[in-house]
Amino acid sequence: MENLKSLFQLNPEIIFLNHGSFGATPGPVFEVYKSWLSRLENQPVLFLGRELPELLFTARKKLGLYLNASSEDLVFIPNSTYGVNIAARSIKLAHGDQVLTSDHEYGACDYSWEFICSKTGATYVHQPISLPVSSDEYIIEELWKGVNPNTKVIFLSMITSPTALRMPVEKICKRARSLGIISIIDAAHGPGQEQIDLQSLGGDIVFGNCHKWMLAPKGSAFLFVRPEIQKIIEPLVVSWGYKSTPQTTTGSRFIDLMQWTGTNEHCAYLSVPSAIQFMQDNHWDSVRVECNRLLRIAIEEICTHFDLEPLYPLDSHFFKQMAVAPLPEVNLDELKNRLYTEYKVEVPLIKWHNKQFVRISVQGYNSRSDVEGLIKGLTEMIPHK
Amino acid sequence: MENLKSLFQLNPEIIFLNHGSFGATPGPVFEVYKSWLSRLENQPVLFLGRELPELLFTARKKLGLYLNASSEDLVFIPNSTYGVNIAARSIKLAHGDQVLTSDHEYGACDYSWEFICSKTGATYVHQPISLPVSSDEYIIEELWKGVNPNTKVIFLSMITSPTALRMPVEKICKRARSLGIISIIDAAHGPGQEQIDLQSLGGDIVFGNCHKWMLAPKGSAFLFVRPEIQKIIEPLVVSWGYKSTPQTTTGSRFIDLMQWTGTNEHCAYLSVPSAIQFMQDNHWDSVRVECNRLLRIAIEEICTHFDLEPLYPLDSHFFKQMAVAPLPEVNLDELKNRLYTEYKVEVPLIKWHNKQFVRISVQGYNSRSDVEGLIKGLTEMIPHK
Repeated sequence: MENLKSLFQLNPEIIFLNHGSFGATPGPVFEVYKSWLSRLENQPVLFLGRELPELLFTARKKLGLYLNASSEDLVFIPNSTYGVNIAARSIKLAHGDQVLTSDHEYGACDYSWEFICSKTGATYVHQPISLPVSSDEYIIEELWKGVNPNTKVIFLSMITSPTALRMPVEKICKRARSLGIISIIDAAHGPGQEQIDLQSLGGDIVFGNCHKWMLAPKGSAFLFVRPEIQKIIEPLVVSWGYKSTPQTTTGSRFIDLMQWTGTNEHCAYLSVPSAIQFMQDNHWDSVRVECNRLLRIAIEEICTHFDLEPLYPLDSHFFKQMAVAPLPEVNLDELKNRLYTEYKVEVPLIKWHNKQFVRISVQGYNSRSDVEGLIKGLTEMIPHK
Repeated sequence: MENLKSLFQLNPEIIFLNHGSFGATPGPVFEVYKSWLSRLENQPVLFLGRELPELLFTARKKLGLYLNASSEDLVFIPNSTYGVNIAARSIKLAHGDQVLTSDHEYGACDYSWEFICSKTGATYVHQPISLPVSSDEYIIEELWKGVNPNTKVIFLSMITSPTALRMPVEKICKRARSLGIISIIDAAHGPGQEQIDLQSLGGDIVFGNCHKWMLAPKGSAFLFVRPEIQKIIEPLVVSWGYKSTPQTTTGSRFIDLMQWTGTNEHCAYLSVPSAIQFMQDNHWDSVRVECNRLLRIAIEEICTHFDLEPLYPLDSHFFKQMAVAPLPEVNLDELKNRLYTEYKVEVPLIKWHNKQFVRISVQGYNSRSDVEGLIKGLTEMIPHK
């Protein structure tokens, strides 16, 4: 993958092992983005006022082909946080309703549910799923201990943020559906790290980032809503589409309500097809396999060195290009600071319950030497009994 | 102003007299914007994860100096539509409450209020203010005919969209305050077209675009909330700031709640100081005077040719760089189409009640010949009795 590195714009002096937080956009996709921005400035009224609906339709269609979803069921949004806020506000929770989630969720999404629950009197329940995990069935059974007749919604990350755990969301959504429970999936880290199929995933509402593992410019994400559920969805930003006319409608009430949210550039959205094309042109299926191989090596070496057990079997489907390795007890703030300043390694260190992790992302621009740089830093700085 | 034209990026083949819809960004400001975007891609985690709060603080401070507001009372938002949605959701309307507005408002903002009123049982009342206008007092008295004991909010545009009318918002906010009525001002078209002073404006909540008359990149706007009102403001997108910690707080609950709304580029926001600098470097006070002079000529010539009365006195403070001229009865769709294809003029034609207007924007890149191009098109195409 050495030659891929030159296609990205990352500071070559930093060992960048944190693709997971904000992604990184390759130069060729960034050039497409800038050319959309220039096209906008060439004639803003033509671009935003007349051409945009058709341009967005084309981009949604290409994204839909990539995610196996109809362009009618898919809108662009700025990020997954925006998606969870739409979902939480649209589901009409009542006093006593329960939203069930895991204890592996992203804090900002938790807050969005807590905000809505504080308004409605519903409860937001973090069902514990302890690590290590060894099977999908274990996760599902642990989660289901929290299901009761008040469970109206199951909200879960497809790949969790603090623990980088690929949840068996397909099986969970299916079981939820059979019980009349609405499934809402945060796929912030999903698309790009693996090939997503929204039909077989089966969530009622699924949102995910394009600017993360799909390599699109910042501020591009999607919201998918199953057609049967679309009628309950309310826009976060009410604008013209609230009362579309025969002249202005896109043909879909859902798209009308969600797509136009006031003046903005929309150019990150329009660059998503180029990001998809970039992955295809660069054989991303093979890149992913190679990244996963490097990542396994990293986890294995860290576990072996510190004599700690991994959080999931190393040959499992529980992680793809992002995984956590356990760390011994150590001052994380100090370690983080020294890793960056002395070893030039950008990687998140995470405290989760009483455990400490390093969360490693391996992307196409990384190489064996990056992983070695991290391991060198960790092993030199952390005292090992 | 001829030399200013080369600093913008607009298609030279189009007579662009519609700055009002989406603005236009000068090349030098656009270059700054792109350099922020590149800096982000150089090290996304450093930029978005560590440097951003300080960078945004500096940008808010410079915007605050320009608008005469504390950086603590000011956050960046993507656009004015986003602002009205925050305001409408934050004001706790109850059944029977009235939100009073004029019949000159922007449709998307009307919809945002209608959406909230449909949820709360409040009513949204469009008080008619007929044209022509000749004094602030006339507008205020017409508006006040709609005030009654149920009036909880007055919502008004500073400069209206369909009629380009500069409302006497300072006097209206003052009178509202004395009666305990909350004033919410949509300054989408205000800042840049004139020097705004948020203190003397006196609105409780004021939002406005930076990407319109302030020349910043698309997706940059501000929300100002008077300190006494900030405690009622709810974020549209709940994220990390909902539970900020001593380590993560900006020091202001309002800023914490509103500033971070999930991953996005923030680069349009960070370019706002450069847009302010661009106006200062290019003597925007003089540019505005010259634009207003050209605009008056245009309105006067159109009125004279068609033997119609202007909607406001031509030497008045009711318009700045954007104004409407009345048109005779004519098929607007056909006229609009021919103006663009045959005369290369981009200008909005507006139907408002039973009147028809051309809304002319004059910006620093326009010249006398642009105005002549418009007048040529109108006078050649519209039959005149």
